[in-house]
Amino acid sequence: MSKPMGPIPAGFAADDDFMLLIGGRRADDLVEEAGDTPLFVYDLGLVRGRIARFRSAFPGVHLHYAVKANPFPPLLERVGRDVDGLDVASGGELELAIAARADPARISFAGPGKRDRELAAAIDHGITVNCESEGEVERALSLAAAAGKRPRLAVRVNPDFEIKGAGMRMGGGARPFGIDSSRVPGTVRRIIDGGGDWRGFHIFAGSQALEASALIEAQQASLKLAKSLAQQAEAAPPLVNLGGGFGIPYFHGEQPLDVEAVGAALAESLADRPKILADTQFAIELGRWIVGEAGVYLTRIVDRKESHGKTFLIVDGGMHHQLAASGNFGQVIRRNFPVAVAGRFGSPPEEEVSIVGCLCTPLDRLADDVMMPKAEPGDLVAIFLAGAYGLSASPQAFLAQSHALERLVGAAD
Amino acid sequence: MSKPMGPIPAGFAADDDFMLLIGGRRADDLVEEAGDTPLFVYDLGLVRGRIARFRSAFPGVHLHYAVKANPFPPLLERVGRDVDGLDVASGGELELAIAARADPARISFAGPGKRDRELAAAIDHGITVNCESEGEVERALSLAAAAGKRPRLAVRVNPDFEIKGAGMRMGGGARPFGIDSSRVPGTVRRIIDGGGDWRGFHIFAGSQALEASALIEAQQASLKLAKSLAQQAEAAPPLVNLGGGFGIPYFHGEQPLDVEAVGAALAESLADRPKILADTQFAIELGRWIVGEAGVYLTRIVDRKESHGKTFLIVDGGMHHQLAASGNFGQVIRRNFPVAVAGRFGSPPEEEVSIVGCLCTPLDRLADDVMMPKAEPGDLVAIFLAGAYGLSASPQAFLAQSHALERLVGAAD
Repeated sequence: MSKPMGPIPAGFAADDDFMLLIGGRRADDLVEEAGDTPLFVYDLGLVRGRIARFRSAFPGVHLHYAVKANPFPPLLERVGRDVDGLDVASGGELELAIAARADPARISFAGPGKRDRELAAAIDHGITVNCESEGEVERALSLAAAAGKRPRLAVRVNPDFEIKGAGMRMGGGARPFGIDSSRVPGTVRRIIDGGGDWRGFHIFAGSQALEASALIEAQQASLKLAKSLAQQAEAAPPLVNLGGGFGIPYFHGEQPLDVEAVGAALAESLADRPKILADTQFAIELGRWIVGEAGVYLTRIVDRKESHGKTFLIVDGGMHHQLAASGNFGQVIRRNFPVAVAGRFGSPPEEEVSIVGCLCTPLDRLADDVMMPKAEPGDLVAIFLAGAYGLSASPQAFLAQSHALERLVGAAD
Repeated sequence: MSKPMGPIPAGFAADDDFMLLIGGRRADDLVEEAGDTPLFVYDLGLVRGRIARFRSAFPGVHLHYAVKANPFPPLLERVGRDVDGLDVASGGELELAIAARADPARISFAGPGKRDRELAAAIDHGITVNCESEGEVERALSLAAAAGKRPRLAVRVNPDFEIKGAGMRMGGGARPFGIDSSRVPGTVRRIIDGGGDWRGFHIFAGSQALEASALIEAQQASLKLAKSLAQQAEAAPPLVNLGGGFGIPYFHGEQPLDVEAVGAALAESLADRPKILADTQFAIELGRWIVGEAGVYLTRIVDRKESHGKTFLIVDGGMHHQLAASGNFGQVIRRNFPVAVAGRFGSPPEEEVSIVGCLCTPLDRLADDVMMPKAEPGDLVAIFLAGAYGLSASPQAFLAQSHALERLVGAAD
């Protein structure tokens, strides 16, 4: 029996030849221009649509982009212009953000294992460090003193709650991320008394949540926590980064997040916020939700074979570019991402096939037992939801296979 | 309650300072010489010990090295000299093997998604292509004809059995690898009649098996299958590659494979082999078993923190270099690889800690709730079993973190 796949995201259509269009461009033309497969294509129009939707749902709330979701430089540069801040997770991402001409005053740096040289670079550039431990606060203060700089330091809080049903939990109980709430007020005082420029709180409770109610609850808890921590520290936070956690549907049966409901609830909470947060700027940090659905991974069928009555399509890409689609990126059970034959997009399914990558390992599965229009060697397969945690999160050197190419479309302006 | 970790492989000791020695060299000296962490160190002495052990257990059987296990060029060059063949899984690995000065006549190329340009390069170099489908045979024959070359073609067989209890199954039922047994004789005839230089069979039934009895059974079944296929094709195979599948213990409770038992059983089977296989050379293809235990991943502690009563050591490496140790490489349940504090190797455990990587994701766990001697920022942590499917199988670009360095020790000759 065939297995279902996840929903193909909105924004993709076919031309009269049933060829998949990405940003209005034919998939085969994009491959020809790029010169080879596999090819990641990111549609800037869809990214901008997401940003616009956020703006409309969250008036007055800042939008930060989590660079780790997709650091492709042309994309990063465009997104950087349209959002209020870039969140980086390493010295390397900091360099990418600077190269993308982001204003250092709008960059912040989170991550539990910042090395001294990364902290020094952050302080030197004047970006905000989201401190993950008391030890890191001390290192940052002393590196700043040595450099004769005043460091911009925020406190990442390990909240006592997490987003219910989140794909990844980042709060609640013992965690490597952030500082336990009970020790946060003292840490804020230490930063202020130590001469640091205290920038506020970073509260990240989870990611990949699809239930508006779970996000609303987590944001309300974050606001309550920010208030209590600020009161205990006797200091008003300039910024509260409420984290992100907005998910996108990857698998059969998953429904898109109702972001407008989240925005409406947050607006209500903010209208009612306590006095100590009156002048606080609030921000939401998103990666996957902004870029995830805008990316398509195009790979070409190299072979078609039968084995014991099953049909396999073998493509020139695989888990070395799209680890998550193979089910090896934090998933316990492998489920099918949405996939399509690019040249027969929207055609009715005709046969059950399994699509596997070119790597010589049984881990390299891209779609198991899915119903598809008939496809032959030479045809292009499109794997959707390739805009976030795709190429950069995959073992690209594995088996010394071909490199993937990347292109941004819809960026004419 | 603390959780167990896998067994530290044999061949590692400490000096009088309790500093871990790798190939007789102090871990801290190796890091100092390399100039940075994280650092992979591979001990060529341990690799050679494995090769010698194979030679002694499998007299007369050829040993092939599966390049995908570890393609680090200095290692590949040395191993290439000591084994009888190199098995590559991509055009990129073919280039690495050629660059390591391997004799093309001793290189074979398996992999389900070989592109035309990879087949053409293989034919041009005169290496053996292990054909994975009838379509691939046709492509190889026609590319060879166009190039005016006689291609060396073996047939990869999809056997009707698999290695029982193997970590990864690569045979038995519908698989993307190889050609179903029933269609193999016709494929052999097609190669011979099509002017190809038929090199024999490649029969790979699984990997990472620790039970000698399961390997013995699979090898006996492979021999029986090779005989039957050869008889049906009316052609004696010059080579039968029996695959590999020799596992190494990664986790608590796992026992090393009794390779001598496997070798003795194979010798018996070969002494008794049917006439059609009388002049056949047999080979076993190993990667993980040769290099897996010889590698150590050294990473430095950046931070030590408490959260809700739990102690976290945060290191400057992580899943971007050692994906398998994080539990995200085909594992369903995350279990602890063997780890140690390099500067207190062999010291009694004092406290329960969790070791996490520097990536800003809850997936980046290296050891959960393990008992260790006390360690502080600046100390080196050693993660064992890093010689196979380590750096090259990990998402190195993820979060744009520091690159890992690699060194070979014990290669003075």
